[in-house]
Amino acid sequence: MHSFEQLSSQFADYFNHPHFPSVPASLYEPNEYFLKIGGKRVRPILCLMGNELFDDLRPDAWEVAAAIELLHNFTLIHDDIMDKAPLRRGMETVHKKFGESTAILAGDVMLVAAYDLINRIDVSVLHQILGLFNKTAREVCEGQQLDMDFEKQEMVSQQQYLNMIELKTSVLLAACLKMGAILGGAGERNQNLIYEFGKKMGLAFQVQDDYLDAFGDPVKFGKQVGGDIKSNKKTFLLIHAFETASPAQQKELKRLLATDSPDKVSKIVKLFQECKVDEWALKLKNQFLDEAFVHLEDVAVISRRKEALKELALFLVKREY
Amino acid sequence: MHSFEQLSSQFADYFNHPHFPSVPASLYEPNEYFLKIGGKRVRPILCLMGNELFDDLRPDAWEVAAAIELLHNFTLIHDDIMDKAPLRRGMETVHKKFGESTAILAGDVMLVAAYDLINRIDVSVLHQILGLFNKTAREVCEGQQLDMDFEKQEMVSQQQYLNMIELKTSVLLAACLKMGAILGGAGERNQNLIYEFGKKMGLAFQVQDDYLDAFGDPVKFGKQVGGDIKSNKKTFLLIHAFETASPAQQKELKRLLATDSPDKVSKIVKLFQECKVDEWALKLKNQFLDEAFVHLEDVAVISRRKEALKELALFLVKREY
Repeated sequence: MHSFEQLSSQFADYFNHPHFPSVPASLYEPNEYFLKIGGKRVRPILCLMGNELFDDLRPDAWEVAAAIELLHNFTLIHDDIMDKAPLRRGMETVHKKFGESTAILAGDVMLVAAYDLINRIDVSVLHQILGLFNKTAREVCEGQQLDMDFEKQEMVSQQQYLNMIELKTSVLLAACLKMGAILGGAGERNQNLIYEFGKKMGLAFQVQDDYLDAFGDPVKFGKQVGGDIKSNKKTFLLIHAFETASPAQQKELKRLLATDSPDKVSKIVKLFQECKVDEWALKLKNQFLDEAFVHLEDVAVISRRKEALKELALFLVKREY
Repeated sequence: MHSFEQLSSQFADYFNHPHFPSVPASLYEPNEYFLKIGGKRVRPILCLMGNELFDDLRPDAWEVAAAIELLHNFTLIHDDIMDKAPLRRGMETVHKKFGESTAILAGDVMLVAAYDLINRIDVSVLHQILGLFNKTAREVCEGQQLDMDFEKQEMVSQQQYLNMIELKTSVLLAACLKMGAILGGAGERNQNLIYEFGKKMGLAFQVQDDYLDAFGDPVKFGKQVGGDIKSNKKTFLLIHAFETASPAQQKELKRLLATDSPDKVSKIVKLFQECKVDEWALKLKNQFLDEAFVHLEDVAVISRRKEALKELALFLVKREY
């Protein structure tokens, strides 16, 4: 049993090497560049932890973990094109640095490289892991499409938003854990429980993310507060504010959303507070987290094996940055 | 043993049904739309023929054939974005009709759907088929990147162009046949021979394609003659013309390439004829085709089993449209 820090360090040793051939450099340099931007590598660690929940780490868990990280990076490269994002973690995005066409292809080969890692695992689990990998990749694409669709809609319901977030964010976290569990020899019931744990944790994580955008400490948060508000993103907060605001507050909210004034963020945050959106969001986050932990509790292994996962979930969801 | 026509008709029955869920329609309608544009479906038929060369068609050959067709369509959707192509087979391209972001995602899920079909095949051949599928997908992306790189280069050598075409076009045709051969139980030597046959056939096909752009009958060709010439595409013909032209012809060719005049195509075609590029191209095509047939001859099965493939190769490469 290893902690998040231990697994992170071991995974970095395993993962931080070139993943692509050197030729053609015009295609593969962008891939290596993007992987070097790095990240917390939460998803592969979840896979490793899913394995360790049930048994000692098996060698091919590292390959599945790496495949998951490549899948995640494929989605980031393509999402950045769609979102026209110039920066990621302070570095230029692939399409900004190398052009859109190359970014499309770099994402494509990143996905193919992920499948190549999947193909290295033992044939006895290949069908099941590949099936879950495919399902998850498809769902993440669906989530991204819904997210784009929502930008064009005047309003979306909590239910629609929840569905989108589940697809775009939660199912990948859930699948990481489940793939690890499959590799660890877990039975179907335990596999499903750990999947549900991951899904609820992902939802709690997203509520937290939405909350921090409006109410986070800009120093700890490390990025500009109010980004979602400025771009009129339909977050848990905005959707709930619309649902609970008085007619006068609704009118004011609509007026603010239509403006681009310097005090737009502060005024909307104030309105959120008047509607008690902040309290509600913290409650919702804890509710998802509690639901996640109920599933984890129910996994039929001794609680000592669950400690690392519990700690990671709390760290991810209680974080202030 | 079936002919191309028989397999085409059977494959159409198998393939022409919805391949995607109905929701979210904003993502999957573009996929279904694109698949309905159709095509000759040469690649899946090559897979089926590769199987039948060695044994009766096995059920999962249809799934691999369909996966290959989805892989091919994934590359077309993304290539159309990169090439800014407004039309394909007279129909609007996905990015033109549904927007670029959706076209990126539609291509992505098309590729994932291909992997989902691959995952349906018997586990005894899964590792090998998946490995070849991954290698081929990666190479096709490399070919597309090189093709884009060449647009920015003043000139490329025959060797560079050949390498690009192998990656962009030939390896997929070769892999279709080899996947079929694997499913048909072919040994390694026969697998490699049929792969080389496919590769050379692909090269002959490309020479033919380049030739028809300049010298094809516009009525039979079904598309505008001279498209490559107008866009200064470095084809087999242009590269050879530059290599064999006299200094005066070279100067004239460069001058013509820099213009956009209405007689650009006719003048360059005339220059090609003066340099005997047309004769050379037909010789090169036949050379590749002969090489292809040497590999096919060498496949250790009775010649009766090779008839359908031979016929298809001749049809594809001698075609005037």
